[in-house]
Amino acid sequence: MSKTWSVDEHLEDILRSVRPLDPIELNLLDAQGCILVDDVVVPTALPPFDNSSMDGYAVRTADVDGASEEFPAVLSVIGDIAAGSQGLPTVASGEAARIMTGAPLPPGAEAVVPVEWTDGGTGGGPADAMPAHSDAPEGASGQVRVHRPVLPRQHVRAKGSDVKPGTVALKAGTVLGPAQVGLLAAIGRGAVTVRPRPRVVVLSTGSELVTPGEPLGPGQIHDANSFVLTAAARAAGAIPYRVGAVADDADTLRATIEDQLIRADLVITSGGVSVGAYDVVKEALSRVEAFRGGEEDDREDAVGDAVEFRRLAMQPGKPQGFGLIGPDRTPILTLPGNPVSAYVSFELFVRPALRTLMGQESVRRRTVRARLAVDSPLTSPEGKRQFLRGDYTPPGEEGELGTVRAVGGAGSHLIAALAQANALIDVPEKTDRLAPGEEVTVVPLD
Amino acid sequence: MSKTWSVDEHLEDILRSVRPLDPIELNLLDAQGCILVDDVVVPTALPPFDNSSMDGYAVRTADVDGASEEFPAVLSVIGDIAAGSQGLPTVASGEAARIMTGAPLPPGAEAVVPVEWTDGGTGGGPADAMPAHSDAPEGASGQVRVHRPVLPRQHVRAKGSDVKPGTVALKAGTVLGPAQVGLLAAIGRGAVTVRPRPRVVVLSTGSELVTPGEPLGPGQIHDANSFVLTAAARAAGAIPYRVGAVADDADTLRATIEDQLIRADLVITSGGVSVGAYDVVKEALSRVEAFRGGEEDDREDAVGDAVEFRRLAMQPGKPQGFGLIGPDRTPILTLPGNPVSAYVSFELFVRPALRTLMGQESVRRRTVRARLAVDSPLTSPEGKRQFLRGDYTPPGEEGELGTVRAVGGAGSHLIAALAQANALIDVPEKTDRLAPGEEVTVVPLD
Repeated sequence: MSKTWSVDEHLEDILRSVRPLDPIELNLLDAQGCILVDDVVVPTALPPFDNSSMDGYAVRTADVDGASEEFPAVLSVIGDIAAGSQGLPTVASGEAARIMTGAPLPPGAEAVVPVEWTDGGTGGGPADAMPAHSDAPEGASGQVRVHRPVLPRQHVRAKGSDVKPGTVALKAGTVLGPAQVGLLAAIGRGAVTVRPRPRVVVLSTGSELVTPGEPLGPGQIHDANSFVLTAAARAAGAIPYRVGAVADDADTLRATIEDQLIRADLVITSGGVSVGAYDVVKEALSRVEAFRGGEEDDREDAVGDAVEFRRLAMQPGKPQGFGLIGPDRTPILTLPGNPVSAYVSFELFVRPALRTLMGQESVRRRTVRARLAVDSPLTSPEGKRQFLRGDYTPPGEEGELGTVRAVGGAGSHLIAALAQANALIDVPEKTDRLAPGEEVTVVPLD
Repeated sequence: MSKTWSVDEHLEDILRSVRPLDPIELNLLDAQGCILVDDVVVPTALPPFDNSSMDGYAVRTADVDGASEEFPAVLSVIGDIAAGSQGLPTVASGEAARIMTGAPLPPGAEAVVPVEWTDGGTGGGPADAMPAHSDAPEGASGQVRVHRPVLPRQHVRAKGSDVKPGTVALKAGTVLGPAQVGLLAAIGRGAVTVRPRPRVVVLSTGSELVTPGEPLGPGQIHDANSFVLTAAARAAGAIPYRVGAVADDADTLRATIEDQLIRADLVITSGGVSVGAYDVVKEALSRVEAFRGGEEDDREDAVGDAVEFRRLAMQPGKPQGFGLIGPDRTPILTLPGNPVSAYVSFELFVRPALRTLMGQESVRRRTVRARLAVDSPLTSPEGKRQFLRGDYTPPGEEGELGTVRAVGGAGSHLIAALAQANALIDVPEKTDRLAPGEEVTVVPLD
């Protein structure tokens, strides 16, 4: 009898063979969710020029020294400076320029007096707000009364105060979320070099499978696996191609996989990997010559030219296969045919492989400890690592442990229960019994 | 001076006015991430027929009663039953049918003997596995020796044991993740009625804005806001349309918004809402007649026909606007122009509005309590609710509280710091000082 592999051994074997995809340059928004390949260095200062942090008046500080509401400094308004203004006026002694938030500080000016510290050019009391330019064009000239002094550089955002040229804005390996996309835009990057999203071809196998929406004949069931795996691949950040169900014929399956390799960074199949007489995936893929690329193979980490089928010490998901196939040595993971087994296998093996292709540093899901909320003990087969479906409730605001409830029992065919679960309960191989209230390891499926 | 609104008042006003989008029918995979509108009832039993949970032999239990390795029951193999088999043979007394996992239990048979409890038809000792059909077609006939008895229904998955017809598979309001998509496929649903993803038009305003990738002239900066907001809208599950930067001209802006309304379920602008003389969004949208639909409005919750601009007791993000515009009363949120203010405003106001449009029950982000990991106290403006950017470390496996570090300080223009943050620290209005180690409320930005 051949070796039984542990979950960790199988995963490690996969991760040893899968390499991050080659980088490509993408437009900024297309790179969202991808991983930066190189450090991004700031090309020019941000902000690129001294600018006002308030709506108000750009002044020389000496002109407003000692100003108060009772004894305001009266300055001549020499113009409006909006954000984006070019050809700035120079502010001389006794003068002020009306300035908007973000607009460049004009030559001569040393600080900005907020509009609330002035009469807004109205000749009345302290202004509440700056009127719209179109409503008060006259505010760009005339006089303004300033009620308070300002310090040099007060209400001025200095050039380079956000980032200085030459500093690293984002490090290689950063995941580009909204804020990182924003920073790259702010420093003028319209495109960026990242690892692309992996393209995943998803096939399910079985002559009994019918596409959802079509009626069932005798002995037929609807194809759930290609849907659950396609959705899971997309949720993991990949670009999935659902090929759908292939009949149980080894030649057809082999031809289908060969056709699909051109658009695949990874292939997933489900079904046909057990010990049964119709295990078509096994039959199609275990012949080494079927997928030789014809080229010399000098890679040290070569795991063979075809797929190795294994028995894992886990439940659900015992029969698994993994290999590198075709001329590009495309990784293929062959998952068991039951929908729940297929999904659990995806979470344990395919998702880490996809995250490796994407260049993610952390490829495994986080785990948490939680208390088992059950009325009676759960049993687990000794010698098998069991992944029960769970309904996990995180701890309240005050820390503590969360709780987890098992949903649906151990029956691997219960997809209805899987759809009520938000977590897996990871039961170690040596454990055969879990008591109510016991602390367990939980994998939230966020 | 007009009223200052609290964060919660502004949000509540928005949520009172925004309604979930009308449902549409989508193909199953297109509905991923969407919210189910109606309960989905199971049309037919799942599994739809009694089937084998093992590879083995379908038998009558009386025929293997008392069987042992020493005294095996010898049965005539009458054929192979694969998954999807039609025209099943009837198993009579003294007979067995070779059967694969998932294949229908043939008439006459009462249970399945796993192949490991037999000689696999080889005439030798206990079989390890079922050989491939193509390798051993002879296994579909001849004799099999059974070494152990089985109970009635043993290794049989009963029709309807996963879900029974008429039961509710998924409730209205369920978010369709991979497992839910899988369940819908399994019960034969090829399409499903959900609330669509909202289409969000994103504009930034400012004559100083230049598209990233293009060179800057004097007084110009790159447009970060339309990128950060587009990425944030997509991350929230919406379909964003980035219109990009519009110059500071009220007529141009009004015309642009009017043009875009046709494809918008929600509009976001950034910039031009402050108290400045060039606040173009305010100028373009505060005129009621600009966006009247021309129809009578008898909705009780009408909040007016144009946009109301407000001062909020928050930092960053003081100037905010909200209204319903155009013939379809499309929600518009006008966010401040600084990138960090715009992003924080998105998180606080736009994301809940989008989740409401999607029909999500929970529209707010979860909050956690964490210990402030700083060397010296932080100050916060009293009377303003402050949202500091934070780097949050969740608690270890053992519960406890996580920790949070403030990144970048309070300066609202520091987009470089925002890109290092993974959380917001929510500082209440009445708090003016936070001590090292103090417990604070944190909003993780997952």
